Amino acid sequence: MSTQLLNTEAVVSRLARTRALMSRHGIHALLVPSADPHLSEYLPAYWQGRQWLSGFQGSVGTLIVTPTFAGLWADSRYWEQATKELGGSTIELVKLLPGQPGPLEWLAEQTPEGATVSVDGAVLALASARTLESKLKARGACLRTDLDLLGQVWEDRPALPVRPLFEHLPPQATVSRVEKLAKLRETLKQRDADAHFIATLDDIAWLFNLRGSDVSFNPVFVSFALVESERATLFVDPGKVNAQLQQTLERDGVELRDYNEINAALAALPSSTRLLVDPARVTCGLVGHLQDEVKLVEGVNPTTLAKSQKSLDDAFHIRQAMEQDGAALCEFFAWLENALGRERITELTIDERLTAERARRPGFVSLSFNTIAAFNANGAMPHYHATEQEHAVIEGDGLLLIDSGGQYLGGTTDITRMVPVGTPCNEQKRDCTRVLKGVIALSRAQFPKGILSPLLDSIARAPIWAESVDYGHGTGHGVGYFLNVHEGPQVIAYQAAPAAHTAMQPGMITSIEPGTYRPGRWGVRIENLVLNREAGTSEFGAFLSFETLTLCPIDTRCLEPSLLTREELEWFDAYHAQVRARLSPLLEGAALEWLLARTAPLSITA
Amino acid sequence: MSTQLLNTEAVVSRLARTRALMSRHGIHALLVPSADPHLSEYLPAYWQGRQWLSGFQGSVGTLIVTPTFAGLWADSRYWEQATKELGGSTIELVKLLPGQPGPLEWLAEQTPEGATVSVDGAVLALASARTLESKLKARGACLRTDLDLLGQVWEDRPALPVRPLFEHLPPQATVSRVEKLAKLRETLKQRDADAHFIATLDDIAWLFNLRGSDVSFNPVFVSFALVESERATLFVDPGKVNAQLQQTLERDGVELRDYNEINAALAALPSSTRLLVDPARVTCGLVGHLQDEVKLVEGVNPTTLAKSQKSLDDAFHIRQAMEQDGAALCEFFAWLENALGRERITELTIDERLTAERARRPGFVSLSFNTIAAFNANGAMPHYHATEQEHAVIEGDGLLLIDSGGQYLGGTTDITRMVPVGTPCNEQKRDCTRVLKGVIALSRAQFPKGILSPLLDSIARAPIWAESVDYGHGTGHGVGYFLNVHEGPQVIAYQAAPAAHTAMQPGMITSIEPGTYRPGRWGVRIENLVLNREAGTSEFGAFLSFETLTLCPIDTRCLEPSLLTREELEWFDAYHAQVRARLSPLLEGAALEWLLARTAPLSITA
Repeated sequence: MSTQLLNTEAVVSRLARTRALMSRHGIHALLVPSADPHLSEYLPAYWQGRQWLSGFQGSVGTLIVTPTFAGLWADSRYWEQATKELGGSTIELVKLLPGQPGPLEWLAEQTPEGATVSVDGAVLALASARTLESKLKARGACLRTDLDLLGQVWEDRPALPVRPLFEHLPPQATVSRVEKLAKLRETLKQRDADAHFIATLDDIAWLFNLRGSDVSFNPVFVSFALVESERATLFVDPGKVNAQLQQTLERDGVELRDYNEINAALAALPSSTRLLVDPARVTCGLVGHLQDEVKLVEGVNPTTLAKSQKSLDDAFHIRQAMEQDGAALCEFFAWLENALGRERITELTIDERLTAERARRPGFVSLSFNTIAAFNANGAMPHYHATEQEHAVIEGDGLLLIDSGGQYLGGTTDITRMVPVGTPCNEQKRDCTRVLKGVIALSRAQFPKGILSPLLDSIARAPIWAESVDYGHGTGHGVGYFLNVHEGPQVIAYQAAPAAHTAMQPGMITSIEPGTYRPGRWGVRIENLVLNREAGTSEFGAFLSFETLTLCPIDTRCLEPSLLTREELEWFDAYHAQVRARLSPLLEGAALEWLLARTAPLSITA
Repeated sequence: MSTQLLNTEAVVSRLARTRALMSRHGIHALLVPSADPHLSEYLPAYWQGRQWLSGFQGSVGTLIVTPTFAGLWADSRYWEQATKELGGSTIELVKLLPGQPGPLEWLAEQTPEGATVSVDGAVLALASARTLESKLKARGACLRTDLDLLGQVWEDRPALPVRPLFEHLPPQATVSRVEKLAKLRETLKQRDADAHFIATLDDIAWLFNLRGSDVSFNPVFVSFALVESERATLFVDPGKVNAQLQQTLERDGVELRDYNEINAALAALPSSTRLLVDPARVTCGLVGHLQDEVKLVEGVNPTTLAKSQKSLDDAFHIRQAMEQDGAALCEFFAWLENALGRERITELTIDERLTAERARRPGFVSLSFNTIAAFNANGAMPHYHATEQEHAVIEGDGLLLIDSGGQYLGGTTDITRMVPVGTPCNEQKRDCTRVLKGVIALSRAQFPKGILSPLLDSIARAPIWAESVDYGHGTGHGVGYFLNVHEGPQVIAYQAAPAAHTAMQPGMITSIEPGTYRPGRWGVRIENLVLNREAGTSEFGAFLSFETLTLCPIDTRCLEPSLLTREELEWFDAYHAQVRARLSPLLEGAALEWLLARTAPLSITA
């Protein structure tokens, strides 16, 4: 019996037990999101209940179970995987499309009058709970968030992670936790709040200058924080904090309590408390423990904005991390170029070799996300990841897309480059060149300080749209400082709402990563990270421009240089000159030769 | 005694009588917006109550009167005028700044608990009434919209306009009113509505293929419309419709009722009615006449979207109107270039001569807005208008900004050009060239069909931002077809919310008019109208591009050609080649010579 069949049988049995329990509680529909009490992107196994119940292993998807229907909502990057993994389970794949109704809308339309929908409030954002509740109310249905039905049927549920915490120390930690706490308390005062509850793990890690490894790639640890005017409490498994760190934290005014005491602590807040929370970043279950009289002051977590604005000292360390990362990439590419056609190389080999090169660099801690090494057709899936079972051998002609990044003590990297294999065809070169034009257009941009970041997206897309090409993902996401590779509040994506908190501020780090995906053929993406820098003030106000942080050649053999304008060529050659100047001191031998060859000016040869 | 002093005395006395009346009704604050029951941009004198009560003659501003305070909120373009006109009146000018609290927020903060705010519901949008009411409620104050206090103190209130209606006929009217009504009823059905109430004058004029001249520049007439499944009723002063037109309308299924019967007609709608209204485009006073049970189906008026999408036949007539308008401009510019330095020319002369040239062209009906002829420092005020009392003589060196437009039976024009006077300085040339770069960048753009129009703004601004320059107004507004020169739903402005109804669709006409304003020195703006055209469908979806409709040389003597890229020069020369080819058949003599000289290719001379 295949693994798939075994899985399918297990899922069918789990669904049956879940439905029996739903019936006992008078629940018509159960919604299981991909979420945890911290509303994180990467979930510890303990909260991967949707995976367990549905059998679909993709990281994002929402399951709805009713007595007669089970459906899994997933976006296009998961359709292939979901079709395979849901086969035989009786769970339908519901294809999620931008602008189309999602699972909440489905519930709002399909729930019978008088029926009850259940979602575990422990993993449902307060904002989502409000939306769902009002939609259901309009139908005469109701929402229950006090039941953990899944927990009752999940017999072999994994334990919570217990990896030790460690300090993010100077020189890379450039602002002390005492200073950060004082600043946060000032903001609370301005917002007329007495206390602030934080559930988001990267906000907590940043605020306390602590890191962990409870989940892959994001150096965070499972915890909550409660900051009041006189004390700051970190709720974390005591087994994760050694005695010395505990002392250090106490000295800095940070009290430790067990992770599981958060409910009691929220319940014990005085009824006169004005508590700052972000309704999109705390769950309704946690907020439900507060006394009814506690007044919620709602807004984006101040730490989210503060941590997005890297200091000049942070930038100094980030530039060093980028040099190390760039050097690792040069070593890797030099090896790859030599090995291609001589030894058997697969997408998995790429990941191994590149990870090994990064691991050799000073300050390296871990990868910042799963390496994407995707050859030809695999590159057309923006979130492809090669596995032992399925991966391509790099041979013949075409394009290899490599999207990878590292966590360093002094910064987080994220870079995508295209590698020519054999001889890329003209259409592939045109795709790469057009995507590069998008990168250049936005990289060169200057813009008013405070502009809402989604509004910048069309600058990157204009040269791509000009040839009737587009891509479904955003152009850029915020990046942390030895923290999550995806962070807010800024986002360069025309699909995102240009809300006030998305305003561009000095010190923010954002990716610029336009692409072109031709299903079944190939995919192109080129990605650099850029830093918002003050570009002076004129009579028209203050302006920002981007400093490109990422340092690695963009392979000209994937390009058609005649399609670049003079201004684009100038940017390109200046970028390569900088890459050469800053990486060559770190390299020797074959890697240095590769760097020199790959950074030769285009405008001479073009 | 000066006029100003006389005015001031009148205003002081009017305020006193208003306050006495407020006190009698127990009203704490009276809000008087610049608005009419149609929420129009141009108001008939009958509804210029805010002007009458405050003495401030600017077209946009909001007055608030309390027992101890009177304030007029106005945006920056009116500050100079308001300061002058409010002098001595005891009314404070409150400067309205983007992102700062406006008059509604002021009321929400300053109204004492238990107090009553009064606004005449006849001129307050339903959406604004809802916002204001909920803000006041949160303070324990309340809103009354059933009093017309102003009407009670305004003894010499002007009459409503009574200009006759006329038909917009074929060939320029390319779709019959019968067809438009049928299409509208289809949309009502889709929206599950039985009836639709329209108060916006351009929607009504478009729907019925009728035009009027009740206000300046916009060829509309004061009216309401009620479209039901079996009948369509136009509420208009019967004296405005001659017997023949009345017959024609009846034949087409349009019933006429007196303008003043709208309240009764709304009250008489059956309680089971599902009535489509746009809460931003109908007043709370009118909606207040409906029976409580009438269900409002809320959304943008379907006619707003329909009239924005000009047909291919419309486009044919618009291109002809643009040729006529361009020819008039060439005649004018040829005269101006010859006359400058030989005779005394003022900003007023410019307006007269240009209007006279337009009036000679076939199909011309009227100007589409007040001509802006602004020399040097006057050009720094985006909405400057020269008057008999204050205007500049065109002499010496500098830049003359001319923003003007005409109403033709086959379209509405709106164009801004810069004229060199003497020798413009290098900084002026750089400003003009940079603004031109913005025009070119957006004019050349291609973009996905359905993109939300505000998101395109940064394409025009990128080359301007690049040099730390920006401008406070939007880059583009929609333009009607022998209708309002400002129409929605699309708007190219990063300050606007990218709502779903702002999506770019084929046939829309929009202005592209970036600028640069240096207060006290000069202002630059260059403006063309562009048409959304289908640019084909690729595997990435359907795309649109712009056809530049406006035909008139952009004077190269205001430019620094060395600052243009090769691609910009190519666009510029191709545009001038097109202008020359299409206008030269309409011109002869000096005007033709001027056209030929002013459309000589730059790329040869550069």
